[in-house]
Formats: sequence, structure tokens, C-alpha cells
Amino acid sequence: MARTGIFGRAMKPWSRRSTRDAGSARMALVTVPSWVERDAAIVWHGFTQMAAYADGSPIIVEAGSGRELVDTEGNHFLDGISSLWVNTLGHRVPELDAALVEQLGRIAHSTMLGNGNRVVVELAERLAAVVPVDRPHFLFGSDGAVAVEQALKIAFQYWVNAGDRQRRRFLVLGGAYHGDTIGALSLGDRGVFGEVFDPLCFPVIRSPGYADPGWAEKACAAVEAHHNELAAVVIEPLVQGAAGMWCADASDVAALGQSCRRFGVLLVCDEVATGFGRTGTLFASEQCGLRPDLLCLGKGITGGYLPMSVTVVAQPVFEAFLDRDLGPKTFFHGHSYGGNALAAAVALRHLELIEKWGILSNVVQRAGELEALLRRSILPKPAVRAVRQRGLMVGVELGAPSPELRWGRRVCARAVQRGVLLRPLGDTVVLMPPLTIERAELGHLVEVLGAAIDDVTGGQGPGEDVRGT
Amino acid sequence: MARTGIFGRAMKPWSRRSTRDAGSARMALVTVPSWVERDAAIVWHGFTQMAAYADGSPIIVEAGSGRELVDTEGNHFLDGISSLWVNTLGHRVPELDAALVEQLGRIAHSTMLGNGNRVVVELAERLAAVVPVDRPHFLFGSDGAVAVEQALKIAFQYWVNAGDRQRRRFLVLGGAYHGDTIGALSLGDRGVFGEVFDPLCFPVIRSPGYADPGWAEKACAAVEAHHNELAAVVIEPLVQGAAGMWCADASDVAALGQSCRRFGVLLVCDEVATGFGRTGTLFASEQCGLRPDLLCLGKGITGGYLPMSVTVVAQPVFEAFLDRDLGPKTFFHGHSYGGNALAAAVALRHLELIEKWGILSNVVQRAGELEALLRRSILPKPAVRAVRQRGLMVGVELGAPSPELRWGRRVCARAVQRGVLLRPLGDTVVLMPPLTIERAELGHLVEVLGAAIDDVTGGQGPGEDVRGT
Repeated sequence: MARTGIFGRAMKPWSRRSTRDAGSARMALVTVPSWVERDAAIVWHGFTQMAAYADGSPIIVEAGSGRELVDTEGNHFLDGISSLWVNTLGHRVPELDAALVEQLGRIAHSTMLGNGNRVVVELAERLAAVVPVDRPHFLFGSDGAVAVEQALKIAFQYWVNAGDRQRRRFLVLGGAYHGDTIGALSLGDRGVFGEVFDPLCFPVIRSPGYADPGWAEKACAAVEAHHNELAAVVIEPLVQGAAGMWCADASDVAALGQSCRRFGVLLVCDEVATGFGRTGTLFASEQCGLRPDLLCLGKGITGGYLPMSVTVVAQPVFEAFLDRDLGPKTFFHGHSYGGNALAAAVALRHLELIEKWGILSNVVQRAGELEALLRRSILPKPAVRAVRQRGLMVGVELGAPSPELRWGRRVCARAVQRGVLLRPLGDTVVLMPPLTIERAELGHLVEVLGAAIDDVTGGQGPGEDVRGT
Repeated sequence: MARTGIFGRAMKPWSRRSTRDAGSARMALVTVPSWVERDAAIVWHGFTQMAAYADGSPIIVEAGSGRELVDTEGNHFLDGISSLWVNTLGHRVPELDAALVEQLGRIAHSTMLGNGNRVVVELAERLAAVVPVDRPHFLFGSDGAVAVEQALKIAFQYWVNAGDRQRRRFLVLGGAYHGDTIGALSLGDRGVFGEVFDPLCFPVIRSPGYADPGWAEKACAAVEAHHNELAAVVIEPLVQGAAGMWCADASDVAALGQSCRRFGVLLVCDEVATGFGRTGTLFASEQCGLRPDLLCLGKGITGGYLPMSVTVVAQPVFEAFLDRDLGPKTFFHGHSYGGNALAAAVALRHLELIEKWGILSNVVQRAGELEALLRRSILPKPAVRAVRQRGLMVGVELGAPSPELRWGRRVCARAVQRGVLLRPLGDTVVLMPPLTIERAELGHLVEVLGAAIDDVTGGQGPGEDVRGT
């Protein structure tokens, strides 16, 4: 039953993998444990219930190429989630590999604390030419959440340095997700991933998110009402990803930006997920006509190769931190691997390739095709409640009769069995292919999604309770 | 005036660099800007007052090899701070380069969220054999602060999952530093880097740190007094680095560990700085006979090549998170680049090399030599108040008559001019060479430090106010 995928290679049949489920745990004492078993025994996976992990058809990746992943058993998968929302140009891109090896011949890493590295300067200069921030300065970290932590701390200290002790609160949106460290988590909507850490989080002012059609008016009203106590407004421009790919009208986001400007409140745009072409422009802020005071970038910055994040800071904010050496206006914050030279070399070449390969126009064209495909074969399904899309960020919301049925999880598991790696947000299935995706691959992606939905829901709608896998 | 250093290469004279200070800012309009100027204009450096940055003799690194860094002007420097406390085996290690290139031929990165990667499993298995944690599980991030955030959130949720809503506070030490994100910052002593962010931090219970000779008794008493409300005690075992390299007796740290065990309080060891051989054992916890419930690792884990951090979790803590899929006991936390395959491949080879090359015995031997050198030629200087050392972590505290004199900063600047990269913590000069440092290099390091101290202090003691540089 070997399948030949659109990648032109024989795929090993899924049936080989499923033998693992038939009592492999019991067999572990007498047979060589599988990679899934070895992994489950020792690696704690983020956002994953480890008691259910091994049964959830995880793939243990061995290699990759283009938009394809290969697991330890030789099965091939289309990477439908860009390995998680980070990959842009595909896996094993010769030009990125070459940039990395070239930098390796100079140095892997040197510190940014009080010193610099040439390739980091080159990257910052190249970024400066394209980010929607006025006379930008770049403070590097590695995890995306760190870019947000830096932004919120800079926004907070900005007002302290300016002598204003009133402006110390943050306005954020319902459905917001900005990362999992305590500061980033404080900004996020605990409705998204629970409220267990509430006692550790600082309080914020929250206004409804993009799921509410009147969100922009309410947010602007909140800015007006609270501006005297607001350090900053923090948003994910255009798309609230982790909330389930809720999308905003660009004009609504623009209105909020204008409101911040009018009332002198700093605007922080978290483009960790939307940055680097994902929505069809290099940054989503551009579509909204925004010039944020602080911009958070991560994920796609290295094309999905290496950890790197950065907080981009506009000149007027930066200037508020200038002082005598070691003076109290200094930003006492830094990460050992911020400005890693290997990551910077890859990020620099990545920016060049986005331009050289016309990635943005590919995103726009493919996004149009994907929209048509979804409209034709996914949206009409009774089990599908809504499809939300901006560029190559898509959420297909299933209307499960009960969350206990775990439709999102089960549809994605079926897609994996059919050779497409997907991962849901609750009952919203996310499609987030690499930006170099081709037309035929999109067709395959949507075809597999449709079949996976049918497998799980039996072609039924949300009113009917369909069990089984 | 070309110098020939112990590295056997001609070093370009410092005098070339100093021309830059003579009005180069004014010249920038008509000449090609230097790398320092380009860097200062756009890169925001952590823990750095940017108004003073360009005047602080920063080096812009172009390349490296062994224990040596080379700047954009071709000057060579001994890397006396392991590029900041991260490098272990030196720069451009052929075996680490090869591991990275080999992994590049498979895949750079795939997600850990709900899926795995073979090299990450291999790394976790290899780490499991050496970490002082019972039946460990590994949750990966990239920034060291993230390993701490994960640990504190896991410790907090552990008690929630166990049904104990009382144990939600943390006991931490004076002088503690655990990173700069809001959660990690909350654990740290604001005395170290200011209290501007206090309104964003959660409250903790703080007991005196290693600078207080009676710290251990006080900490044990605090555990006894507060154990009913304590989720965890968080410490940097053996050395409080950022506080100025304050060192503890291993038996005192052991006593605190026993106290945690006795009262059922979780113990979190933050070994981001001390891990991977820095203090002469692979982990400082070993010297203290500790088996922490949670262990935070970063910095040296990849030998100083790539960002990677990990929270190591003992089996009983891990088990409290097992639940039905998507159930409330799940740890909803994850970082996109956690378990990056390239970093994992380097970390795996790095662990092999530490063993194969006998790195730990080199640290012990070199630490003894360094101690003797410091005792002979640094400690007797009137300007030196104290020397603190564990393994290859050293703090030389200067007794400046006033912090305004910035002796720490100025001594390090002179050392850089003399070809050794150093960076202070206030008036404590840190020596933190790569673990492969050789005897002759140590001699050079201490000789330059002595000369730099004399340059700045004129051989005078703390009572006399010596100005100028």
C-alpha cells in the first residue's frame, strides 16, 4: 500500500507506523524501543499532554528538504505548519546552508554585552531598511517571548526615564498571545491557555479582541479613557494567531494606531508570528499603515533555521535611555546568546533571498489560490464553522458538538496519517505552509485536510455527535 | 609598536584603534564610518549604556579561533570572559563545526510541539546520564531566562496539580540573578540591577545571599518558617555569578538542599552559569551533593556556539502533569525554537568532547594555577579588596574609593587595550576563560589584569582617589 505523494517519492505506508500502537509499550522490555518511545520517555514537549503524546501520532523528524519532512521510519510529510510557524523558504535551503557554513568559518558566537560582531551590524543595517519603525535600534534575544519581554520593559522604563510615574499599565486585547514567560503571559489572554499562573502575572487593561466585530472602537475608547495611565498598547497586528487565527481589518488596526499617536501612548506590535512575509507584506504593520514605537520579531527571522528574536525600537524611545555610563536610565537587560553570529548570518542571507526570490508575490498569489481551494472544498463541509485567512496564515474552525470529541486533534492526526503535518489550536486546524509552497502542494494540502475532516466527522455537521477515529 | 602576543602572531598596535576616538564622530560625514560607529548607530547592546558605548573601547568581532578573538581591524584578543560566560572549548572547534555541518545535511529545525526530532532525543538521553536529577525529563528553550521561567512555572503548577493551593511562593537569595524576563527578574535581587521594574514583578521571600557568612542558617530557618506557603527554593548552587562571583561552601548549600527535602519544598538549581564544567565538576550541584527537583541549564550547553536552554525536571514533578489529552494539568507553555536541531547536534557533540578531552581535569588543574597566580600578583595589590573563585569563575573585587571612578569599567578597558577581553560587574572584574585555557594563557591573563589595575589605580589603594585614564 505504498503511496506516491506529490513529491514523486514512494512513501512508506502508514500501516507500518500503526503497528507501534498495538502494545509496543508492553514489548519495550524485549524489543528495541522505537524513536517515539525513546522520545516520550525523556523529552517534555511544549503545549503537549505527555500522557497522551505517544498515542497522538507524533512524528520524530530525521531529515527534511523543501517543504517536506522525513521521519525516522522514512515516512515523508508535507510540512503544513512550517515547523511551527517558523519556516519560510523550506528546509535545507542551499543558500542558507552556505551562509551558515561561511559564518562558521569566522566565528559561531561572540557577546553583544558591551561589544559587537560584524555580521550582527550587517543584519541590523539590512533590517533597518525594511522594518516599519522610525530610525530603528535592534536589541537581540533568542526566544520570541524574550522580544516581547524586552519591549514591555523598554516601554515601561521609557516613562520612568521620562519622569512620568503614572504611565505604567498596558492595554492588550482579548485573545492575545504574546508568549509564555511571565511578562509575556501577563499580556496574553488567559482564556487562551488557562489562568493557573494568574497569581504570578501583573494586571493589565484588556479590551475585546479581533473576534469581536466592534473591537477597534472599544480599544480606541479604552485608549482614550486610560491614556494617562498607559505605558503602551500591545497588539498582534492583523492576525491574532494563537487565539485561532482571528483576523482584523487593516483599517481598524490603523485606527487603533492613530488613537495611540493622538494620546501619546506607545504602540508595540508583536509580529513574531506575522513578520517576514507571512501575511503577504514583509510585516503586517505595513498593511495597517502602522509605524510602531516597538516591534517584536522572531520565528521567521532566520527562515526557520535558528533561534533568534529581536526588539526593534524607534529612535525617540531609544533616546530616553541615553545617560552617563552605568547611570539609572540604562536598560539593564541582556541575554547571553542575543545577537548570535550564526543566526545573524542566516537571517541576513534570508532577507536577501526573500527579495531575490520574490517571496512576497508568491505569498500573495498562493494565498489567493488557497482561498479559492478552501472556499470550494472546505468551507461547504457541514463540520466547518468558519475559515479565517490572511496570506498564508489560515485557521479552519471546526464546529464540534463538544470539545471532548477533540475534532481538531483528531483531524490533524488523520492528516498526519495521510502525509501532511498539521497541528490544531483547539478545534481550529491551522494551515501555515512555508512561503515557497507551490500550487500543487497547496492542492494536496487542502485535499488531505478535506479527507481528514471527512474521516473524523463522517461528513456530518456540528449537530451530530460522531465518535470514533 | 606591533606586539607579538603569546598567540605567536603580530598584533596590530592599539594606537591605530585610538585614532578613532579623536573626533571620528565629526569625521563620519566625510569618511567611511568605522564598524564601531556603524554598530553604535543601530545595535542596542544589553546591559550597556549606549551613550557611552562607542567610547568604552568595544571590540567588533570579525572572527575567532581557540581562545582568541579577532576584531574588524585585525587586532587579536584573549577571550577572558568566554564571550559572555558561554564558551567552553574555545572558538572554531573543528569537531563542533563538523557536528553542525552534519546536522545541516539532515535538517536545521523541526518543532517540538507535539512532535520530536531524533537528535534532540539523542541529546536528552546523553544529558540524562550526567545531570544530577532523578529520572529526568527535558523541556527545551533558547534563552537561559526561559529555562528559569519554565522551572518557576512548573514548580508553581506542580502544587496546583497536586491540589495544594497554599504553596505558591518562592524563597530566593539576596544577590540572586536568574535572568531578565519578568518571572526570572522577580526571583532576582533588584539590588543587582535596580528596582525600576518592581511594579511588574511578583513578590518573593528573600533570605540573605552568599555574601552573608550566615546565609545558610538563615535560609534553612526561612524554609522551616515558610514551608507551608513555599512552592520552591531557587538558588544558584555554589556561585552567585552576577552578584559579583560570591561563593558558598558546598556544605552550606547541601544543608539548604536537605532542608528543602525535609519540609517537602521543591529545589530549583539555576546552573545556567555554573553548568558544563565551569566550577570543576560537570554541574556545581554535584559538589554540594544536591539532587534538585528542577535544574536550569543554558550558556555552556552548546559550548558557546548556539542559543539553547533547558529545564530538567525530575520524574515525580513530571508525573504531576500527566492527565487526559488537553486536560487542565497540562503544561501549556512552549517556545518555537525549543529543541532546535542544529543546537542539539552541537550540544550532543560538546558533551562527548568534554569527556573525551578530559575537560574537567583541565579545569581543576588550571583553577589551581590561576588561584596561585592571583594570590601572588593580584591579591597583594592595594586596590584589590578580594578575590573570589570557584573553578574557572573568578571575581576580582576592586576597592574603589567611589563607584563614580568606575574602576571596574576602566580596568577592563585597559585590559582590552592590552589584548585581553574582560568585562566587569560593577567594580568586580570577572575572569571567566574558556575551559580549554592553557597555562601560558592564564599567565598572560593575570599579567594583563595586573598591569591594567596598575594603569588605572596607579598602584594605589582604595583610600586614595586616583583619576585619569
